Amino acid sequence: MKRATIIFQPSGLRGKISKGKTILEAARELGENIESLCGGKGTCGKCRTLISEGRYAKYGIDSRRKNLSSWQKTEANFIDKKQRTEGFRLACCAAIKGDVLAFVPEESRAAKQVVSKRLHRVSVPYDPIIEKYDLIVEPPTANASRGDLERLLDALGIQHGLKNLACNIESLCPCDINVLRDLPSRLRKQHWHVTVSVWMDREIIRILPGRVLDTFGIAIDIGTTTVVASLVHLNAMQILDTQYIMNPQVKYGEDVISRINYHANNRGGLAQMSADIIEALNSMIEALLCSTWPDNISCLESVEDLNYSSVQQQRAKTEEKCLCLTPEDIEDVTIVGNTIMHHLFLKLDPRHVARAPFPPVVQKSLNIKAGRLGLNICPSAYVHILPNESGFVGADNVAVLTAEAPYRSDQIQLIIDIGTNGELVLGNKERLLSTSCATGPAFEGAEITFGMRAAPGAIERIAIDSETHEVLYKVVGHDAWSNYVKPGELQARGICGSGIMDLLAELYRSGIITKSGSFQQNQMSPRFRINPSTKLREFVIAWADETTIRRDITITQKDIRQIQLAKAAIYAGCKLLMREWGTDRVDVVKIAGGFGIHIDPIKTLIMGMIPDCDPHQIIPIGNAAGVGALVTLLNRKKRSESDWVAQMVEYVDLASLQGFKDEFLEAIYIPHKKDPFPHLEEILPPEILFQN
Amino acid sequence: MKRATIIFQPSGLRGKISKGKTILEAARELGENIESLCGGKGTCGKCRTLISEGRYAKYGIDSRRKNLSSWQKTEANFIDKKQRTEGFRLACCAAIKGDVLAFVPEESRAAKQVVSKRLHRVSVPYDPIIEKYDLIVEPPTANASRGDLERLLDALGIQHGLKNLACNIESLCPCDINVLRDLPSRLRKQHWHVTVSVWMDREIIRILPGRVLDTFGIAIDIGTTTVVASLVHLNAMQILDTQYIMNPQVKYGEDVISRINYHANNRGGLAQMSADIIEALNSMIEALLCSTWPDNISCLESVEDLNYSSVQQQRAKTEEKCLCLTPEDIEDVTIVGNTIMHHLFLKLDPRHVARAPFPPVVQKSLNIKAGRLGLNICPSAYVHILPNESGFVGADNVAVLTAEAPYRSDQIQLIIDIGTNGELVLGNKERLLSTSCATGPAFEGAEITFGMRAAPGAIERIAIDSETHEVLYKVVGHDAWSNYVKPGELQARGICGSGIMDLLAELYRSGIITKSGSFQQNQMSPRFRINPSTKLREFVIAWADETTIRRDITITQKDIRQIQLAKAAIYAGCKLLMREWGTDRVDVVKIAGGFGIHIDPIKTLIMGMIPDCDPHQIIPIGNAAGVGALVTLLNRKKRSESDWVAQMVEYVDLASLQGFKDEFLEAIYIPHKKDPFPHLEEILPPEILFQN
Repeated sequence: MKRATIIFQPSGLRGKISKGKTILEAARELGENIESLCGGKGTCGKCRTLISEGRYAKYGIDSRRKNLSSWQKTEANFIDKKQRTEGFRLACCAAIKGDVLAFVPEESRAAKQVVSKRLHRVSVPYDPIIEKYDLIVEPPTANASRGDLERLLDALGIQHGLKNLACNIESLCPCDINVLRDLPSRLRKQHWHVTVSVWMDREIIRILPGRVLDTFGIAIDIGTTTVVASLVHLNAMQILDTQYIMNPQVKYGEDVISRINYHANNRGGLAQMSADIIEALNSMIEALLCSTWPDNISCLESVEDLNYSSVQQQRAKTEEKCLCLTPEDIEDVTIVGNTIMHHLFLKLDPRHVARAPFPPVVQKSLNIKAGRLGLNICPSAYVHILPNESGFVGADNVAVLTAEAPYRSDQIQLIIDIGTNGELVLGNKERLLSTSCATGPAFEGAEITFGMRAAPGAIERIAIDSETHEVLYKVVGHDAWSNYVKPGELQARGICGSGIMDLLAELYRSGIITKSGSFQQNQMSPRFRINPSTKLREFVIAWADETTIRRDITITQKDIRQIQLAKAAIYAGCKLLMREWGTDRVDVVKIAGGFGIHIDPIKTLIMGMIPDCDPHQIIPIGNAAGVGALVTLLNRKKRSESDWVAQMVEYVDLASLQGFKDEFLEAIYIPHKKDPFPHLEEILPPEILFQN
Repeated sequence: MKRATIIFQPSGLRGKISKGKTILEAARELGENIESLCGGKGTCGKCRTLISEGRYAKYGIDSRRKNLSSWQKTEANFIDKKQRTEGFRLACCAAIKGDVLAFVPEESRAAKQVVSKRLHRVSVPYDPIIEKYDLIVEPPTANASRGDLERLLDALGIQHGLKNLACNIESLCPCDINVLRDLPSRLRKQHWHVTVSVWMDREIIRILPGRVLDTFGIAIDIGTTTVVASLVHLNAMQILDTQYIMNPQVKYGEDVISRINYHANNRGGLAQMSADIIEALNSMIEALLCSTWPDNISCLESVEDLNYSSVQQQRAKTEEKCLCLTPEDIEDVTIVGNTIMHHLFLKLDPRHVARAPFPPVVQKSLNIKAGRLGLNICPSAYVHILPNESGFVGADNVAVLTAEAPYRSDQIQLIIDIGTNGELVLGNKERLLSTSCATGPAFEGAEITFGMRAAPGAIERIAIDSETHEVLYKVVGHDAWSNYVKPGELQARGICGSGIMDLLAELYRSGIITKSGSFQQNQMSPRFRINPSTKLREFVIAWADETTIRRDITITQKDIRQIQLAKAAIYAGCKLLMREWGTDRVDVVKIAGGFGIHIDPIKTLIMGMIPDCDPHQIIPIGNAAGVGALVTLLNRKKRSESDWVAQMVEYVDLASLQGFKDEFLEAIYIPHKKDPFPHLEEILPPEILFQN
């Protein structure tokens, strides 16, 4: 009997698992989603699970203790005595020795993220990589029995002036073998009337019978935590639909290092993580294919063909506005992501990126046939993956730069992209410096007691009254603040990144914590207390009766320290980049962040995450990496631009700079201990700002 | 009970088959090789099978008649009454209605062809498409943490002057994703010492740790009947080994039209035929990988590197001369074949090639990744498929022209390639005309009573004594003529193409048949007779006791007519091409033919297959298409040359020319009825040549 039965509740998933595996490993095998932010190292405490074996006689289990490996010290960091008695264990610590029934409490479930749709315009000139040509091909004649492809190429030359295609590049084929296989039937289906899709004026990637000019592409942003994919109608230059999902690789570890370790320690781990993200992208593509035509698609830009809108309107009428696209209709894809996401997607060995001096396998942008990667779109279409700047600063940052174009600006811009890591770029058209700071995952909710992702139930905005210390909050999925609804209606269950960003500034501004981040002595706030079981000082954000988890949602002294470390890493990075660049001020600060993080510019200034700056020049730019994926999808010159900028940015290794540690230690204060913050003087009362 | 059991003897293959299928279809399903030259249309009679059900009580079969569909009229054309009583049926006519035991007689088995090895040199300058570069790549440094690929490209530029690779062609990747995936480990395995294989100075297709300069390629000739593949050591410019197999598509029909019909009538037929040839090529590649180093490999040409030969010699010593290649070691492949073989290999719809005006899907040469085609070689390597001239004149003819280069010659050359079809090219450096003549498959042994392929037991040469009419012959697999061995030792069982080519000339020269092809009146030859069952006049080539089939091997009046029609098609084609070109003489006649056909130049002149010509200028050139595959493998300029010649040759449609039918009818005579043959006057006695 080398295998045991494990059943997960409330999902009901069950299966036989080799004894010796942990409950977390079993969950991965069976497809149960248990949170594991640290990747199973026993350091995040997110995978607390209630083990119920022994009570269920019908499973033939008679003693709970026998069926799991013994209690580990690390578990005590996250599970108090009472919970231990109830049967809680960390899923990553408890190994299976016999049949087990495991209840995964709500806060330990890896939640499905909010899916929202939006329709928005990107301002970039229309110059897609794919162009469609409507052709009448000569039928074969006895006098000149040329090949089908040859006559098609003739027609492209004569009717559209597109001569030679790939033929001017020796030995390049003007079309893919898949296209050749479809060619004879597609030519004959509409009596030699076809539409061809040409990539880069060079290669035919698709042939359609008759006249079909609508062209669709997908822009994809693979984040460490979240994956975003937008379906774009290229001719109309409109986003038709956007899908968000959690990166399925999260089950191998929340941060990039956990995933590299998963590859290093598991044979086939890389292939598994690559297959997981490809499968996830395919499910997103499938969902996007079922999108509907938005109401205002008919306002076209840069589309010469007048017939086009009538075709589309007719289609909209008969098919009840469903796009009814096939995978083959997706003819272009752009992909951005940090260097590790880039490597895991392409199944490139990411191990060396994690070891000094951190070289990526490849920096330059790549065009790879969708069929080769297993992406379920037009198989001959190319997938464009943006270039990496370095091992630490990846294609996602290149995408941010391509979208924001600081290299065209006279102003000195500071662009901060807060994801699982913080990426900073500083400069203007003269020179751009980039760096990466190890913020840790605190801003994404990890290592915070009640931290969670921006899923329903997550507190995303927080305001604290300076007098009463009463807390107002907003929850993902609800428009109203907590004072406008009945207690419990918002169904809070944790705090997500943007809520965490608000916290430090609000606690400081309202005088609850000091400049050093400690709770004020003689704290009289009704929400302040010392937790009886952990003995930690904490502040209650939401009372148990307002939550679905039936416990108070609090922020502890330890949590506050984590947030301070994260913001200090960014501040120190900014300071040192400014020193390297040779400036003591920045004109503009742009703050990009993963989806759902609605960053409050002034709060970032109050908490001391960014150097002093005119608050009006602090601009949240949202998911700028995703916008970069969009602009490169819509405009081929932007692709060349991204290749150029990836080469042009100079990477600065912070750890190698003098004074980094000192800057970092000073930056832990709220705000920085020694730096001047003239703009804050108008915002904060002096007793707060100038306290010792 | 919708399925019945069928057992084939003597192979022992057995299986359950849906009732209603023919025995031939069952044979295909179970992998039994039954000859089917007509593709199952009941017209070739090669699939005669002895049905033995009813006699084998243990299979529960009690009545023979019940288990097969009823006798068809067409079967009587090939099975006489006696054989019918014994239980013979045509496998393509008899449908299965119950359990059946089928004995496939030797002459109905699709024989495995002779496999021979040879070592020969091709005279073409060394200029392969793949070049190998030995590199020391800079390890990553903290100051410039560039990508692995970027540092590799730097080294290629600095150490070998190979700058930019694909990067000067916008958006082309300088290497394949497979190469990127291997890159980090290969770079580090030998401490940054690697060898890279570069295709076309443009793309890295392979990275090897350390220094490995040996480069291997395979030249493949896909014939309708036979497939030939040669393993070439590119640096040494030597053929190491050659494999021959029967094209596995033969089971779908002997000629190209039968295979097109198989596709047209069977869903998935094209995919099946394509998969069959790919599988066959992979088995040939596998066999080639186990080749041994030939003795004289050390005489290198054009290899600058002196270390090379010592590396190779060392390897030869330690590994007992086995090459021990892996599929990845094959870095280049060239493929030639007629248009239909080309299309079936690439899974391109061949149907339109068979319908006027016969357009191919594509004419130009193609470079396709081996991984895309499923060829088991280096997956990032390109497979080069030579261009087609037209629907009728394919890449095999282009290969012949590339090998023989008549376009460089002042002399007017006539190049005749006799395969299942006859392909003719006429001209010199001024102009080249090509055409295809419908010879039918007579020269390959089909439609000839005792015709067979050039497999063991096939009579390949024939000489007839003018006085005694005694016959001497040579059999495939034996060096000796029949008069030097004991009767029966040669184990003849049929006549193959080259024997059939000899026959007409010998029968005519020895006075057995007249100029019109009829047996002489008052024939006194002891080998002449009227067959008692078929009532056909026939001439015995080998007596029953000399054969393994225990029957006299004969040539019938009907067979002679088939050969006459075949040779007349070629003669008429030559005449009309000469007229179109504007010449009444040819300086050189080159006769190419599939492997094993050792054509006798003078006999082709005597039988009237070619126009009058100095016999010394009639040159057999063997498998020139295969040589074309070799020269394009060894020399990249030859590839451009083949693209150019495919465009330059003018295709002539014989059927559309005036006088074709008249020329054809006159050419049926031996030799042509009206044309002068001055050179024959020195060879043939006047009473033969000038008979009426």
